[in-house]
Amino acid sequence: MSFYDASVPAFLQILGALSGLLTKAETHCAAKNIQPDVLLASRLYPDMFPLSRQIQLACDFAAKGCARLTHSEVPSTPDTEKTFAELRQRLAKTSDYLKTFKPAQFEGAEGRDVTFPAGPERTITLKGQEFLNRFAFPNFYFHAAIAHGILRHNGVEIGKRDFLGVS
Amino acid sequence: MSFYDASVPAFLQILGALSGLLTKAETHCAAKNIQPDVLLASRLYPDMFPLSRQIQLACDFAAKGCARLTHSEVPSTPDTEKTFAELRQRLAKTSDYLKTFKPAQFEGAEGRDVTFPAGPERTITLKGQEFLNRFAFPNFYFHAAIAHGILRHNGVEIGKRDFLGVS
Repeated sequence: MSFYDASVPAFLQILGALSGLLTKAETHCAAKNIQPDVLLASRLYPDMFPLSRQIQLACDFAAKGCARLTHSEVPSTPDTEKTFAELRQRLAKTSDYLKTFKPAQFEGAEGRDVTFPAGPERTITLKGQEFLNRFAFPNFYFHAAIAHGILRHNGVEIGKRDFLGVS
Repeated sequence: MSFYDASVPAFLQILGALSGLLTKAETHCAAKNIQPDVLLASRLYPDMFPLSRQIQLACDFAAKGCARLTHSEVPSTPDTEKTFAELRQRLAKTSDYLKTFKPAQFEGAEGRDVTFPAGPERTITLKGQEFLNRFAFPNFYFHAAIAHGILRHNGVEIGKRDFLGVS
């Protein structure tokens, strides 16, 4: 087992699960005559991000997390997705990007410094393992779970197994 | 860095953050004249667990996760908590339990088999690293994030930094 095994597969599992959630959400919209835009703009509270942005943020924490851990160029993706299909494409592109990483790139990464922005004028430096546990994972799972919560709250018939991506 | 570093600190961070969230929720109830029982019984949807159970489940996935990874006796805790104070005690007891683990107990655990129940009549066996990434972490973060989502949805003034436990 390597540090690659501790990071990339965890992200891939949930990214795949989110794609499945969006498919069920889209089917729900069609069955209930709900405008997809309405569900994609739904929030748990007015000061929280809508469903579409939760998906984009989950993608970013996965992609940027792996880039920072391996000292690769950090990808920047414009948040232009406006439909379920486009968000699934974003998820698929993120998964494809994660699959380009090789285990060798993660060798020793748990002990290497990772410097990342924390707000507009501040950076934080942590060892790779700490960065993964204290920042990348909790942020990633947070946005994925809130996306799931928005769908549940709006009546989409999904369960925790859909969040985990297991059948 | 060891497999201990990949697991125990991640759980401890969020368990501590959840305790802080409950304190803010309790303060919110007092300020807004909300019965604590009402907020503790709040759900994002009728087929989801209420706030109190989300906290209990986060505790269980952390405690049982570390027990299974180290082949320790898996603790069983009755879910009797009915107040914010009792739920904070549950979180504190869970953190204390996690702090009893020594890094040596996790040595090699990433490659050891972990067998755990998946429903009433079925078990799954995974290597420790897979168990952590595919089961323990996503379940743990799911219940923690949904607890946070329930509080946000009910107007408690918290942000993602409160979920992460950073100030």
